[in-house]
Amino acid sequence: MTIRVLQVGLGPIGVAVARQLVARRGYELVGGIDLDPAKIGRDLGEACGLAESLGIAVRGDLEGTLRELRPTAAALCTSSSLERMAPTVEACLEAGATVVSSTEELTYPWREQPDLARRLDDAAKRAGETVLATGVNPGFAMDAHPLALTSVCQRVDSISVRRVQDAGLRRLPFQRKIGAGLTPEEFADKAAAGDVRHVGLAESIGMLADAMGWPLDEITDEIEPVIVAEPVASELVEVAAGQVAGVRQIGTGRQNGKVRVLLEFVARIGEPESFDEVNVEGDPCLHSRIEGGIPGDVATASMVVNAIPRVVAAPPGLLTMKDLPPASCWPGDDSRESSA
Amino acid sequence: MTIRVLQVGLGPIGVAVARQLVARRGYELVGGIDLDPAKIGRDLGEACGLAESLGIAVRGDLEGTLRELRPTAAALCTSSSLERMAPTVEACLEAGATVVSSTEELTYPWREQPDLARRLDDAAKRAGETVLATGVNPGFAMDAHPLALTSVCQRVDSISVRRVQDAGLRRLPFQRKIGAGLTPEEFADKAAAGDVRHVGLAESIGMLADAMGWPLDEITDEIEPVIVAEPVASELVEVAAGQVAGVRQIGTGRQNGKVRVLLEFVARIGEPESFDEVNVEGDPCLHSRIEGGIPGDVATASMVVNAIPRVVAAPPGLLTMKDLPPASCWPGDDSRESSA
Repeated sequence: MTIRVLQVGLGPIGVAVARQLVARRGYELVGGIDLDPAKIGRDLGEACGLAESLGIAVRGDLEGTLRELRPTAAALCTSSSLERMAPTVEACLEAGATVVSSTEELTYPWREQPDLARRLDDAAKRAGETVLATGVNPGFAMDAHPLALTSVCQRVDSISVRRVQDAGLRRLPFQRKIGAGLTPEEFADKAAAGDVRHVGLAESIGMLADAMGWPLDEITDEIEPVIVAEPVASELVEVAAGQVAGVRQIGTGRQNGKVRVLLEFVARIGEPESFDEVNVEGDPCLHSRIEGGIPGDVATASMVVNAIPRVVAAPPGLLTMKDLPPASCWPGDDSRESSA
Repeated sequence: MTIRVLQVGLGPIGVAVARQLVARRGYELVGGIDLDPAKIGRDLGEACGLAESLGIAVRGDLEGTLRELRPTAAALCTSSSLERMAPTVEACLEAGATVVSSTEELTYPWREQPDLARRLDDAAKRAGETVLATGVNPGFAMDAHPLALTSVCQRVDSISVRRVQDAGLRRLPFQRKIGAGLTPEEFADKAAAGDVRHVGLAESIGMLADAMGWPLDEITDEIEPVIVAEPVASELVEVAAGQVAGVRQIGTGRQNGKVRVLLEFVARIGEPESFDEVNVEGDPCLHSRIEGGIPGDVATASMVVNAIPRVVAAPPGLLTMKDLPPASCWPGDDSRESSA
């Protein structure tokens, strides 16, 4: 009993998901889709950096591939933008595939893009299929994990989360995405154009606030460069003194002027300490810290892959992480599960 | 829209649950049951140590009360023993009430008491109702929380959890339960009789192993006294040098001789550091620590109360924490939830 999965999008996250689908029990990677003409036609194993060939060619035609392969699920790792990837979700649903995606804006679209959320929820219910987007952040570190911690509370007044990481350990596109190596002026231009933005703070704030019953007046999401006084370097990027080593992004959710949710995301080259910290103020107060932090690249791919069996078993519609049983690491075999 | 709840059992945990049901939005405490003749007939508010009277008398007759009040849910906090409380679960189910309990052995009965588990699962499905037991431990600190953390892993090799607490901050029956103030000989006698045992390690190990797909050969659960060289004291108990300040209990789950799950529970008077620590060995490894620990008494009551709306909405049958969407702190109002 394996779950037949089509991988849509073969960028770094898509490749990481596809490699897990090949390596892990319980999943079968049945095909791969990408828009890049340089990838189409190549062997999927090779496109994923695997030593072995998979005997499956990467394809560019989503609809034809869906019709032909009839996958149980599609793993969608194409874009951070919900608007851009929504038609892909709809095509998968219409072909009878469950959708699990890493698209940040889809993790909690009900506040920021309610019309699109409703459209996909309707499409999923019409098709009798389920849609979920997840990842480490958004999807876990700043929303699902703090929410799970509040289950021991009788009252929650506010939630703050800090995710601080040494970006030098992440993949090159991530180091570029956070502006490492730019001048402050280049950073300002890219920030204004939305090119160095970490996507997901507003989604995490929305999920936390809705779960806690806080009708927020305002959600903010502000970005600033981390400028270093001394040069720092990763294996891939060098940052001179006075230049940008990364990003600090602060998200807040306020109700009646009071900060209910405070999220701080720091990713820079040369950060001495990586950690994920959650503070719940309430009764009781909780202070949780994951020392060393959750490694972003493997964690996002794991979240997508571990969610697949849960989403396949879930009722139809557009779900978010707060609706789904906790997607623990799936061993690929339910035979030991005595219940359900 | 409130959930009408009958409180069954008015010991310390039952009272803590009942007080939350009175104080929190979304719940209505409709009645209280206890077997103690000294409590029956008293006002429920007074029996719960509340300043105000609730105008409801504590009753002793479960069936009659269920028939009369028709509660949506029953909060069962009567016994750690599944065998002893199973008939109470069945009576509630037959009367059409969802059951949420703090009974440790019911949190994951599928391995230790599979026949009783099946009997209650059948009874719940026949009645179209749902049963869950939860608490801070078992129910969260050593099972649901570590499981949620593994969702970022592509592989898990082993899980270890340490819950270490200063028992001097807990209620008196808890301090007595862990043997504080006993001589080593008295502790040995009580341990042999099962009177100082913390119940739940085997249940947490079973839940973790089944979720991770580990067919364990052996589950062990060993207890030893923590004997102090210097006198220590809480506000409630004094411990002389050479006497027992509390308990150390070690649970293991082994597969092919390898320790897959290691749980360490320490509760003693005068413990300098309280914390909850989870170590997941796998890819990635995770090291999580809740500094100061999760306060046990309020947390167990909160887990029960927060689970009630989730269990009311769940499909019929006997569920465990790994089957249920994460029961975050419930604000008592779903109006802000855009989905579902």
